[in-house]
Amino acid sequence: MTEINFKKRKSIQQIEESTDLAPKFDENGLIPVITTDNLSGEVLMQGYMNEESFKKTIKIGEAVYYSRSRKKLWHKGQTSGLVQIVKEMRIDDDQDCVWLRVDVKGGASCHVGYRSCFYRSIPFGLKENSDQKLEFKEKEKIFDPKKVYGDAPNPTKL
Amino acid sequence: MTEINFKKRKSIQQIEESTDLAPKFDENGLIPVITTDNLSGEVLMQGYMNEESFKKTIKIGEAVYYSRSRKKLWHKGQTSGLVQIVKEMRIDDDQDCVWLRVDVKGGASCHVGYRSCFYRSIPFGLKENSDQKLEFKEKEKIFDPKKVYGDAPNPTKL
Repeated sequence: MTEINFKKRKSIQQIEESTDLAPKFDENGLIPVITTDNLSGEVLMQGYMNEESFKKTIKIGEAVYYSRSRKKLWHKGQTSGLVQIVKEMRIDDDQDCVWLRVDVKGGASCHVGYRSCFYRSIPFGLKENSDQKLEFKEKEKIFDPKKVYGDAPNPTKL
Repeated sequence: MTEINFKKRKSIQQIEESTDLAPKFDENGLIPVITTDNLSGEVLMQGYMNEESFKKTIKIGEAVYYSRSRKKLWHKGQTSGLVQIVKEMRIDDDQDCVWLRVDVKGGASCHVGYRSCFYRSIPFGLKENSDQKLEFKEKEKIFDPKKVYGDAPNPTKL
């Protein structure tokens, strides 16, 4: 397998206009990742990669994140079976954000059991006395998290 | 105009399963935002909001971010005219990420001049000796950044 080497960031011209892959990781060594369903375009989740998971994703063509709560590589689907097959991988103008277009084995990406992590909408354009409650956009869970994850700790933090 | 009050984060059940809007801002007071084209589903950009820009977006129905480089509210389109009209606003399971579905006046969202900031793809599933160069997925810019932004400093940082 080819070793993957990132290019050194030298100029705005190089970063924005060239074909050099020169990703920028933040002060914690992470880069944000947006994951969408390849067919529907729906945003499934937002996660992070460190350098190792970024390179592993490129190598194996499946989404590998870095779990901030568990502080280790997170090859999505290894516990749940909900593997994300990468169909396209893009990077943004200043190369500090990644977009993955994926097919999901099992059809769900959210640990709560929904297809997308973004299963609720926020009302906006509020008028006087309008209700501000979130609205559920997915009515039913795809899977039962207790059956899939058992007693594993919930990643959501207060 | 109704004042917008976020709920206090009390339990995982409340955050994941209820209709309470209880967003989590990070140690810098920011929440990441994914912005997609309402019709095509294409990811246009990834930005950040602070509490003030989050509330302003809800109130006016246009995307208002917080610019980390300029350290101030960034009502997208005030310089370029490329205003983003919010069609739907969603929040994720643990309420630490926002997804905006928008229509863009002028059809472009990227300061480099492209429709999407994610105008290049990363080759993946590499074989021995394969080429690792980024591939341009948008062939032509929608606008000339020099004409739109003049001598304003480029937000891309090395």
